[in-house]
Amino acid sequence: MGKNNKDFVKEITPMEVDFPQWYTDVIRKTDLVDYSPVKGFMVIKPYGYALWENIQSFLDGRFKDTGHKNCYFPLLIPESLLQKEAEHVEGFAPEVAWVTHGGKEKLAERLCVRPTSETIICSMYSKWLKSYRELPYLYNQWCSVVRWEKSTRPFLRTSEFLWQEGHTLHETYDEAQAETIQMLNIYKEMAEDLLAIPVVTGRKSEREKFAGAYATYTMEALMHDGKALQAGTSHNLGQHFTKAFDISFLDRNGDMQNPYHTSWGVSTRLIGGVIMVHGDNRGLVLPPRLAPNQVVIIPIAQHKEGVLDKAYELKKQLDDMGLRVELDDNENYSPGWKFNEYEMKGVPVRIEIGPRDIKNNQVMVARRDTLEKEAVSMDGLAENINRLLETIQKDMLEKARKHRDANTYYVESFEDFKEKMEEKPGFAKAMWCGDRECEEHVKAETGATIRCIPFEQEDLGGKCHFCGKEAKHMVYMAKAY
Amino acid sequence: MGKNNKDFVKEITPMEVDFPQWYTDVIRKTDLVDYSPVKGFMVIKPYGYALWENIQSFLDGRFKDTGHKNCYFPLLIPESLLQKEAEHVEGFAPEVAWVTHGGKEKLAERLCVRPTSETIICSMYSKWLKSYRELPYLYNQWCSVVRWEKSTRPFLRTSEFLWQEGHTLHETYDEAQAETIQMLNIYKEMAEDLLAIPVVTGRKSEREKFAGAYATYTMEALMHDGKALQAGTSHNLGQHFTKAFDISFLDRNGDMQNPYHTSWGVSTRLIGGVIMVHGDNRGLVLPPRLAPNQVVIIPIAQHKEGVLDKAYELKKQLDDMGLRVELDDNENYSPGWKFNEYEMKGVPVRIEIGPRDIKNNQVMVARRDTLEKEAVSMDGLAENINRLLETIQKDMLEKARKHRDANTYYVESFEDFKEKMEEKPGFAKAMWCGDRECEEHVKAETGATIRCIPFEQEDLGGKCHFCGKEAKHMVYMAKAY
Repeated sequence: MGKNNKDFVKEITPMEVDFPQWYTDVIRKTDLVDYSPVKGFMVIKPYGYALWENIQSFLDGRFKDTGHKNCYFPLLIPESLLQKEAEHVEGFAPEVAWVTHGGKEKLAERLCVRPTSETIICSMYSKWLKSYRELPYLYNQWCSVVRWEKSTRPFLRTSEFLWQEGHTLHETYDEAQAETIQMLNIYKEMAEDLLAIPVVTGRKSEREKFAGAYATYTMEALMHDGKALQAGTSHNLGQHFTKAFDISFLDRNGDMQNPYHTSWGVSTRLIGGVIMVHGDNRGLVLPPRLAPNQVVIIPIAQHKEGVLDKAYELKKQLDDMGLRVELDDNENYSPGWKFNEYEMKGVPVRIEIGPRDIKNNQVMVARRDTLEKEAVSMDGLAENINRLLETIQKDMLEKARKHRDANTYYVESFEDFKEKMEEKPGFAKAMWCGDRECEEHVKAETGATIRCIPFEQEDLGGKCHFCGKEAKHMVYMAKAY
Repeated sequence: MGKNNKDFVKEITPMEVDFPQWYTDVIRKTDLVDYSPVKGFMVIKPYGYALWENIQSFLDGRFKDTGHKNCYFPLLIPESLLQKEAEHVEGFAPEVAWVTHGGKEKLAERLCVRPTSETIICSMYSKWLKSYRELPYLYNQWCSVVRWEKSTRPFLRTSEFLWQEGHTLHETYDEAQAETIQMLNIYKEMAEDLLAIPVVTGRKSEREKFAGAYATYTMEALMHDGKALQAGTSHNLGQHFTKAFDISFLDRNGDMQNPYHTSWGVSTRLIGGVIMVHGDNRGLVLPPRLAPNQVVIIPIAQHKEGVLDKAYELKKQLDDMGLRVELDDNENYSPGWKFNEYEMKGVPVRIEIGPRDIKNNQVMVARRDTLEKEAVSMDGLAENINRLLETIQKDMLEKARKHRDANTYYVESFEDFKEKMEEKPGFAKAMWCGDRECEEHVKAETGATIRCIPFEQEDLGGKCHFCGKEAKHMVYMAKAY
């Protein structure tokens, strides 16, 4: 019987040796994702999808707290709609998938698989909106989008990815701007509180903004290898689309007006960020609030009387505390094999329990983040584990922040920038004149880009690091995923 | 300034006058859904999407209780994969959307937008599965699918719809069969307990089964107009796909074997069922467990002192009871307008509170399902409303069951069937010989089909109602959506 060989996955390559290979090894060995028969399209396996579900659940709750409602707009967008906003079509048309046939018939007009939904949503908003009384529109959708990418990497850049896209309309510019910033702040809260990833927030340069935006705001995280990841964006779209799509309403003065518009999104790319911020050479390290399983209990000598009973009793105590707990009593694998497996999968806490532990009224508790292990009394265990998980969550954020700070430096000149990026890639803070020309030069010579003009501006001297002209902004520069 | 006119929606056409028009009026007036610029594709608006979220939440919980995990497979499927299972490609190829270009390039192989994911999922299972130790595979995905339909109606038949699709693999035929029936039973539980829709469950005839299935099981509901709705299906796929896709594993005896396979799904079509089972000439009637808002509080003479305070106090009591409550204190609309609006939207319970009510320590409580209204004391109100909602939920299921039973009848002969279907369409119970020829004749002459061979067989005499030959099965026949 013919059979594809199961892909053989070797040990994890140390990240110091080959970071991209380390990343690939980790995602394959930990069963987060697989490559599909369609180039650039990934299969998100249950362990990877569970991470996305936890991100969804956190964000969906925050979106609803702030008055947003979910809805669903069509997957396919007519070519003529995509073309209505000039910058937008220029940005997206080169990378969309085109549906040309339905069943056996050739379509009169090509339809693209949505790369993002501003156009189809605006066509509906134009039909719906009548009066200022109906504003604001605060809608979001969870879906997948397709962007035809030439070179792809699971989670980080794939031709299809899962995301959410919020699309709101407001009476005034100020309200739209407040919404844009509010949603960026919710993303930041999610990144820091759930993913334990510290982020820098700020505005994108004109060159780097979303195709069709008035202003794009971003949160940027720093990976282990010193490259940046754009982890979420929120766009103030001004009236660009509402004019192009003829969305208008009767305002408080009885005049017809175009509303102000925002959109904002995060995607499964966040999971790539979690891997590259927290992972180590043993595999994943998951922050407790995100982890599908927060605790794994591994019985030692489980055939001995009382071991499994006690292990299940502990599991119940932890379950009752509201923790997500797995007990692995599979007899086909040794405890040692299981230690490695759950370490690789990044489970935050491992509890080992054997006959000797039971005699001593204790268990062994191992932290995934620090690899520390110690004996802990069974008395009050659930409370202690609960507290430990909170400690791990905080420590992981702190550790990531320290790593980021240690890899963030000030550069005075372009020579300085090139040297430092060569020596130790990271976030470079620099002054910038605001000219696109300087920005283009830096990118052409180094591959690095302006990641953002941070909200927290620092005065690092008055001159552009590149051209020496008077500086307008302090920026973060980095190579990026 | 140019502006699309907001579509003008007239009053709801009575269902006795024109049922299809009643349906269309209800979904438009209640803001569940809208037509999009792409023919056959719908926009699910927030109120409609909230119904889907409640269905998702119920089912996702039950799927996880029964050991299933979610994952995500690619949207696009290569043509060569779709063609691997002969019956399947014949069933689906005529109705798929084809992607032929990615960006500016023509693709070497066409990709279809998934109409269902057996083929892409089986291609991955073939790569993953090695040993019986890994079985069962119990995976599900929530996504949208596209089937190019010629004539469409919102929720009931659209070219794109939202659904979940479970895809499982098992060691033995018996396990696969048990899974198929388990999932059908979960669907039945959802239909009856959440949607208050009674369903008949059973097996599809060979003619009506899923393209590529060994056996298809279905739940069928009866609408107000006497037409049936296939509300969910669960397929035992046998080894059809696992052989075609070369999925195999080392079994307990050390032999290579093909696993047994199931798939099962329900979709946004369920929302169409809710509308057509419970709705009336005033609009939607939503069962309390499904309703986005279970209670609406409408203050009367809200400018009078104390009214709004008391209304908010009651809302808090109901919120604290865990109920989903809206308080509409919009000053732009009269109480009378609001009564109509929330009746149309199907909110199960309306509470009216005005100065006189407050003086009498009471509120007026109106039930949407029976349109009854009575004064209820403010003492213990939250408990009473909670109990009332449970009563409404039960009563709605009972009412729907009575309607279905009153429209279910036994037919002895084909003449009898035609007469009764003409007079009063509904579920016809009949004996059937099992031959496809009789089935085809009935369909050709009447448009009705065999909806299912119910699990609960009744002996209605030994002869096929059509040909008079010896009967094999009792079946339900009906015209269907």
